[in-house]
Amino acid sequence: MIKKIEQQFLQYVKKMMSYNEAISLMYWDLRTGAPKKGVEQRSEVIGMLSQEVFKMSTSEEMAAFIAELSPKHAYEQLSEVARHTLEECKKEYERNKKIPADEYKEYVVLQSKAESVWEEAKAKADFSLFRPYLEKLVEFNKRFINYWGYEGNPYNTLLDLFEPGMTVDVLDQVFGKLRERLVPLVQEVVASPHQPETSFLFHPFPKEKQRAFSLELLQELGYDFAKGRLDETVHPFAIGLNPNDVRITTRYDERDFRTAIFGTIHECGHALYEQHISEKLIGTPLCTGTSMGIHESQSLFYENFIARHYSYWKRNYARLQQYAPEQFSDVSLDAFYRAINEAKPSLIRIEADELTYPLHIMVRYEIEKQLFNGEIEVKDLPEIWNDKYEEYLGIRPHNDAVGVLQDVHWSGGSFGYFPSYALGYMYAAQFKHAMLKDLPHFDELLEKGELTPIREWLTERIHQFGKTKKPLEILRDATGEALNADYLIRYLEEKYKTIYQL
Amino acid sequence: MIKKIEQQFLQYVKKMMSYNEAISLMYWDLRTGAPKKGVEQRSEVIGMLSQEVFKMSTSEEMAAFIAELSPKHAYEQLSEVARHTLEECKKEYERNKKIPADEYKEYVVLQSKAESVWEEAKAKADFSLFRPYLEKLVEFNKRFINYWGYEGNPYNTLLDLFEPGMTVDVLDQVFGKLRERLVPLVQEVVASPHQPETSFLFHPFPKEKQRAFSLELLQELGYDFAKGRLDETVHPFAIGLNPNDVRITTRYDERDFRTAIFGTIHECGHALYEQHISEKLIGTPLCTGTSMGIHESQSLFYENFIARHYSYWKRNYARLQQYAPEQFSDVSLDAFYRAINEAKPSLIRIEADELTYPLHIMVRYEIEKQLFNGEIEVKDLPEIWNDKYEEYLGIRPHNDAVGVLQDVHWSGGSFGYFPSYALGYMYAAQFKHAMLKDLPHFDELLEKGELTPIREWLTERIHQFGKTKKPLEILRDATGEALNADYLIRYLEEKYKTIYQL
Repeated sequence: MIKKIEQQFLQYVKKMMSYNEAISLMYWDLRTGAPKKGVEQRSEVIGMLSQEVFKMSTSEEMAAFIAELSPKHAYEQLSEVARHTLEECKKEYERNKKIPADEYKEYVVLQSKAESVWEEAKAKADFSLFRPYLEKLVEFNKRFINYWGYEGNPYNTLLDLFEPGMTVDVLDQVFGKLRERLVPLVQEVVASPHQPETSFLFHPFPKEKQRAFSLELLQELGYDFAKGRLDETVHPFAIGLNPNDVRITTRYDERDFRTAIFGTIHECGHALYEQHISEKLIGTPLCTGTSMGIHESQSLFYENFIARHYSYWKRNYARLQQYAPEQFSDVSLDAFYRAINEAKPSLIRIEADELTYPLHIMVRYEIEKQLFNGEIEVKDLPEIWNDKYEEYLGIRPHNDAVGVLQDVHWSGGSFGYFPSYALGYMYAAQFKHAMLKDLPHFDELLEKGELTPIREWLTERIHQFGKTKKPLEILRDATGEALNADYLIRYLEEKYKTIYQL
Repeated sequence: MIKKIEQQFLQYVKKMMSYNEAISLMYWDLRTGAPKKGVEQRSEVIGMLSQEVFKMSTSEEMAAFIAELSPKHAYEQLSEVARHTLEECKKEYERNKKIPADEYKEYVVLQSKAESVWEEAKAKADFSLFRPYLEKLVEFNKRFINYWGYEGNPYNTLLDLFEPGMTVDVLDQVFGKLRERLVPLVQEVVASPHQPETSFLFHPFPKEKQRAFSLELLQELGYDFAKGRLDETVHPFAIGLNPNDVRITTRYDERDFRTAIFGTIHECGHALYEQHISEKLIGTPLCTGTSMGIHESQSLFYENFIARHYSYWKRNYARLQQYAPEQFSDVSLDAFYRAINEAKPSLIRIEADELTYPLHIMVRYEIEKQLFNGEIEVKDLPEIWNDKYEEYLGIRPHNDAVGVLQDVHWSGGSFGYFPSYALGYMYAAQFKHAMLKDLPHFDELLEKGELTPIREWLTERIHQFGKTKKPLEILRDATGEALNADYLIRYLEEKYKTIYQL
C-alpha cells in the first residue's frame, strides 16, 4: 500500500520536474538566441508551465501524499530517494501554503515592476526612483518571515532559502574573521611598490580564437561535451537541465580575454557539479546542487584554485601564446601570472578580483542583516553603502549606479542570496585544504593537465549527492570539520604576500 | 453563461497550446544541437508533456466543453475563433476517442519499433525485414479507418488527416491528368540532344560562404530574422513555435551548393506562411498551416516559382558569382539557369528535380490507395514499386534501399501524407496563375528583388487564415476555381520545352 503511494508520489513529482526541465530549456533558449519578437509569447508559455508546477506543489494531491507518507510507519518504508524527495516537497509545500495567495500574487507583480524600475534607476543613477519599490519588497519579505517563522534571527529565514541551515551566528563569526584580516591585507597590497604590469592584457584578441582556446581548456578540465555545449550570452551562466545536459555560456570581450577564459572556467565548475549528480536522482527535486554556496564553491574552485594557480599556467601559457602570439610572445610566464592575479579595490562586485571580492559581499551581508533586523532603513542605504565601501575597500562610489544600485538581486526580491558567494569561496578553500591530504601533488596534477583525480575527488564528496545532503553536512563529511574561515584567509595571505612581495 | 464557458474553454486550449509550444522547442533543440547524452531524458520529458496534451484533448473536461458549446444556441454566441477552435477540438476528440486506448498504445509501440527496423532494413536493402511491421501498420490503419468511418473510399479517411476534404475522386482525376502529360514530357526531355552542362555546379563552395549567401537571400525574400533564425541540421525543416518565432534549418553540401540554397528557400516558403498567420490565432490549434498540401504550396512556390525562375537569377547571379568567383566567373547566366533546372529521371524522391518529382508521388499515391482498398498486398510492394518506376520514369531500382524502402513515412504509420507533396505543387502553380492577374509584372518584381507584393498577396489570401479556412476553401477563394492540374502542366511544359528545345 505505502509502496504504491510512494510510486504515485514519485510519478507526480517526476511530472513537475519534466515541466521544470522544459521551462529551463525555454529559459536557455531565450538567453542564447531566441528571436526577439517571440519573447513575449515564450514568456507566457513559461508563465503557464511555472504556474502549473506551483499549483502541483501546493495541490490537495500533494497534501495527501505528504499526509500519507510522513507518518513514521510509512516514512520508514520509503526508499532513501523518496524520503529526501518528500522532505523537499514538504518544505516547499509549507513555504508556499503559508503565504496568502493574494499576497503572493501582489508580490509577483511587484517583483517584475521593481526590476524594470531598478533598470531605469540604475541607468539614471538615481536611487530615489527605486526606493519605494525596495521598501515594499523589504516589507513583503518581512511579512513572509513572519508567516514562515524564524529561529534566532529573522534574517536566518532568508539565508535558509539559499543556504539551508546557515545562520547569522555562523556568518557573523566567519565573515568577521575574514574581514578583520582582509581589510589590512588589501591596504598592504594597495600600498605595495610591486604592482604587476597589466597593459598587455588588453590587446585585441579575436573572439574566434578565444572560443577555440576556451573549448580546449574545457575539454581538459573534464567538461563533457556529449552532455553540454558552450554558447554566448551577455550574462554568462551554467544551467543543468539534467545531469546529461548541462550547458554553459560565456561572453567574449575582444579587448580583455580574461572575461571569457575565467568566466568559462567559472561556469565549467558549476557545470561539472551538475554533470556528476547521480543519475538516480533524475526526475526528483534532489537532482541539482544542494545550495547556492556549495554551487559557488565548485565554480570558484575551478576559477581560482585551479585557473589562477601558477601551475595551471605553467601548463597552459604556451598554448595561450599560440592563440595570441603577438600579445604574449614578449611576456614571461611570471609576468603573466602576476598580471592575471592583480588585486585592486574597485566599485563593482562582478568585476572584482579574488582578493577584494569577499569584501564586496561583506557590505551586502551587513546591510541585509541590519535591514531585516530593523536596525537600518531603506532610505539610508546609499550612504551606508558608500560608507562601508570606504571603510572596507578604501574607495567611495561617486554615484548610486556604481554603488547601491549595481546589483539586480534586490529588485527581484532576493535577500539572503549574497552571502552564498563568499561562503562558496570559503567552502572552496576548505575543500582544497582537505583535498591536499588525498592529492598532495595537486600542483603537479595541474602542471600535467591531469585534472581527473581532482574532479573525481569533488564528485565523490560533493557532486554525486545532489540535494540529498545539506551544505554543512557536505562540508563536514568532505573536510572533517565545521565551516572555518582560516583556509581562505591563509590562501589569500600566502598568495598575495608573494605576488606583492609584502 | 455561454460567454464564461467560452472563456474557460479558450483558456483550457491555450494551456494545451503552451505545452505544444514547449514540445516544439524541445524538438527543435534536439535536432539543432542538444547534447547527445541528454537525448533520452529529453525524450521522456517530451513524452510526458505530449501525454498531458493528449489527455487534455480527450478529458471529461473537454467532453463537457464540447457538449456545452456545440448546441446551436450556444454555438451561435461564440466568437469566430472559438467556433473554429471548437471544431478542431471536436474532430480531435472524436478521432482519439474512437480508438480503444489499449489498441492505440500497442500502435505507438509498433511505430517506434517499426522505425528502427525500417532503418536496419534500408541499410541492408532488405524489404523482408520490414515487411511484417509494414503489414501490421497497414492492418492497424485499416482498423482505425473502420473506427473512424469513411465516405466513398477507405483511403479518403487517411487523406483527410493531412489534407482535410481531399478525396480519391479528386486525386484520381488531377493526378491522372498530370501523369498522362508528364510521362511523355519526361521521355522527350531524356531524349533531347540539348542537355544542360552541369559539371560546374559541383565545385567546392565553402559552407561559410553558402551560409552568408543564404542569409542575404532570406533577407530579400522577406524572412523576418526578428521572428526566426537559421540553423544547420542533417534533415532541413521549418518549425513554427508561434508566428513570432518560426525557425528554419538547412544542410550545407560543400560539393553542391544547391542543397543549401534551394533547401533554405524551400523552408523559407514554409516559414513565411507561419510568420504571417494572424496573431489573434495564437494560443489556439488554428495557429498553423491549414494542411500539408497548402504548406507545401508555399515552400514550392518559393523554391520553384521564384528561385528557379530566370528573372530571380537575373538579379542574384552576380551576387552568387561574388561568393564563388572561381566557380562561376566563366559560366553565363543562361548556362547557369539551364543547369539548375536540369531534369533527369532518378530513383530517389528527395533528390528529384521539379519536373520528375510529381511522378515519384504518383507511385506512392497509387500504392497507398490500392493497399487500403485491398487491391494489393504488402508482400508485393517491392515489385509493384519497381514496375511503376519503370513505367513512369523509365528506370528500375536495383535494390529496395533505393526503391520501396527509401522513405521514412510508412515506418511511422504515415499513410495519406505523400499526395500532399504533389498537391502542394499543383496548388502553387494555380496560385501563381491567379497572382499574375493582380501582379502581371511578376517577372519584373523578381528581377528587381521586390518580393514584398508577392509575399503580401500570399499572406492576404493564404497565410493569415491559419486553420480557419480549409485547403480547398483557400484555393477557391484565392483562385476562383477548384483544383486544376492544368496550371502545373502548362508551367512544366512551357519551361522544359524551352530549356530542352523540344
